[in-house]
Amino acid sequence: MHFTKARIDALEKHTRTHLINSLSGFKSANLIGTQDLLGNTNLSIVSSVIHLGANPPLVAMIMRPHSVPRHTFENILQTGTYTINQVNKSIYKQAHQTSARYDKDESEFDATGLTPEYLNDFAAPFVKESRLKYSVKFVENQHLAINGTELVIGEIMDVFVDKAALQSDGFLDLQAIETVAVTGLDSYHTSNKLTRLPYAKK
Amino acid sequence: MHFTKARIDALEKHTRTHLINSLSGFKSANLIGTQDLLGNTNLSIVSSVIHLGANPPLVAMIMRPHSVPRHTFENILQTGTYTINQVNKSIYKQAHQTSARYDKDESEFDATGLTPEYLNDFAAPFVKESRLKYSVKFVENQHLAINGTELVIGEIMDVFVDKAALQSDGFLDLQAIETVAVTGLDSYHTSNKLTRLPYAKK
Repeated sequence: MHFTKARIDALEKHTRTHLINSLSGFKSANLIGTQDLLGNTNLSIVSSVIHLGANPPLVAMIMRPHSVPRHTFENILQTGTYTINQVNKSIYKQAHQTSARYDKDESEFDATGLTPEYLNDFAAPFVKESRLKYSVKFVENQHLAINGTELVIGEIMDVFVDKAALQSDGFLDLQAIETVAVTGLDSYHTSNKLTRLPYAKK
Repeated sequence: MHFTKARIDALEKHTRTHLINSLSGFKSANLIGTQDLLGNTNLSIVSSVIHLGANPPLVAMIMRPHSVPRHTFENILQTGTYTINQVNKSIYKQAHQTSARYDKDESEFDATGLTPEYLNDFAAPFVKESRLKYSVKFVENQHLAINGTELVIGEIMDVFVDKAALQSDGFLDLQAIETVAVTGLDSYHTSNKLTRLPYAKK
């Protein structure tokens, strides 16, 4: 099947959104935990979290300031702290539900039944049910003028991981802790490991 | 298990790299096809391709200018064109092999046995064996001074997809075409669909 650019542009809006969202491949499923200066907690699912570098340990994500996760972005700018919590098979439905348009004074923790947890005196809430989570210190955001999104960059601080995932070389087995992946806007997947491959040499 | 920031900083370099690379969750597996102005083709696997927006249709990726994919980045800047080709179960080992340090005049197509394919008069080569691929017009790069990486943004032009993936609402079933996902630096996975969830409402 060949979709020309003209044909893509002419697609009904929701159809185009589903199609374009499918093109990048598998996406990570993470819950971003924040709170404002009054202590109102917020939780939002984000599928654009990506590894940015290991030294220093940096993580990035794309936020759309004018859509649902705006409370998250505002809280990050206000407090400089957030948590990233991997979504697993036991909580993916609750995680997805955080994408509904809750008001600022409604906590997605309360609305979905996920449990806020405060670890190691970090100001932002973790998700107790997540089996791999870490605290993040906001570093900077880059406004992407082309479509109004923000690239939010943070430094990874403390990591909390179920020991079932830990391998001797530092690799974390996300399949062992049932981390899920997302495709498109709304499809959730567990994984089957094919194999780990050795460092490629000529 | 709790890894404090101090403990992470003190990890042996490769261990830290594996650990930090595992934190973001599942990543996409894509081959970036380019060629220089002399027609030398290049192919490199990139696990940082992310959806940036559907209207206009934009895709972004992180490149490390001083590591292997620098030929890719140079070619993109020279020609303004590239292709993104999803990696599937039949070609993931060849795709991984493109991360070896080939010289500029050695094509990863030749080295791995993947087949270059030119579609719809687009200047950059596609991967014939990929079942979901699209041409991309370079839009801009943003240098991320914090660690010297580049955020490369492109506009999606023509899409070529195996019809087995196509659903009536525009969603593409990546599992049906055996697209793989990556965790960490070197682990490849197929997927099991849990379900698609409806648009979340309060």
